[in-house]
Amino acid sequence: MEEAAAILARTPATLDALLRGLSDGWIAANEGGETWSPFDVIGHLIHGERTDWVQRARIILEHGETRPFDKFDRFAQFALSEGRSLASLLDEFATLRQENLRALERMRLTDADLDRRGRHPELGVVTLRQLLATWVAHDLDHVVQISRVLARQYSDEVGPWRAYLRIISGSQG
Amino acid sequence: MEEAAAILARTPATLDALLRGLSDGWIAANEGGETWSPFDVIGHLIHGERTDWVQRARIILEHGETRPFDKFDRFAQFALSEGRSLASLLDEFATLRQENLRALERMRLTDADLDRRGRHPELGVVTLRQLLATWVAHDLDHVVQISRVLARQYSDEVGPWRAYLRIISGSQG
Repeated sequence: MEEAAAILARTPATLDALLRGLSDGWIAANEGGETWSPFDVIGHLIHGERTDWVQRARIILEHGETRPFDKFDRFAQFALSEGRSLASLLDEFATLRQENLRALERMRLTDADLDRRGRHPELGVVTLRQLLATWVAHDLDHVVQISRVLARQYSDEVGPWRAYLRIISGSQG
Repeated sequence: MEEAAAILARTPATLDALLRGLSDGWIAANEGGETWSPFDVIGHLIHGERTDWVQRARIILEHGETRPFDKFDRFAQFALSEGRSLASLLDEFATLRQENLRALERMRLTDADLDRRGRHPELGVVTLRQLLATWVAHDLDHVVQISRVLARQYSDEVGPWRAYLRIISGSQG
């Protein structure tokens, strides 16, 4: 639990250091088509803080498997972030994350609590421990996504080095 | 150039926010076998600041294609980082990066300079513009790598969510 919280507490500052003050050319860039920009991803993380992780933890503790989680809207950020600045989104994400980590602390989860089960609307039975581990991995997944989106703006500019750059060539290596 | 420098200037603070103060369990974790830990990656980035990017830029400006770059030692960090703390590596990386960005500014590179050609020992002819774009993408590639190494410590812990987490399932999606 402490290990997980250590990563969760660091994500807002990590994304702040990476993104705040970058030009719109970087912030609004995506990987083509319907893919997300760094701006979109921060909105998605905010929506997760508001409706996903801690809320689902509460549903598990209060209702167990009897009440499935609400579905998470993966596209909510497009309307919610409209007209906002990246700086205000980063601020909001940091505030919400801090509040949610405090809420998590107040739950004083025991090992037995972490084994309690809930019901995901698509994946079926999951434990509270799996939910919290997923929160951590989900953060890191989006740090990866943002870094990849930024790097791929230079897919052509790197020339022959493309062969060495897994982030551009797409291999996991 | 300014766009590239904006990312290069942010990488040390990004990795600092992500890693400083994490337990050894996170810092020394890798993806198995000969793969690198976050600690190893910071050492690799330091070695790049000392021997790769700005040094190669100078070789291009002074010698063009006539003198190939020195080969880069991808394993130097294992000896160089031995016995060091992560905090001291993060400090050193930040200092070296700042010095190198100042050195880059002092070169006052023109568009014509950026088109100048050098010789990579394996890839052949490359331009200074490609070298600088690769510096940026290389930073981001290692932010991805570190995030992935951390997330994969929870490959089992996330349970059924594994299917949704590209960082763990390995798909690029």
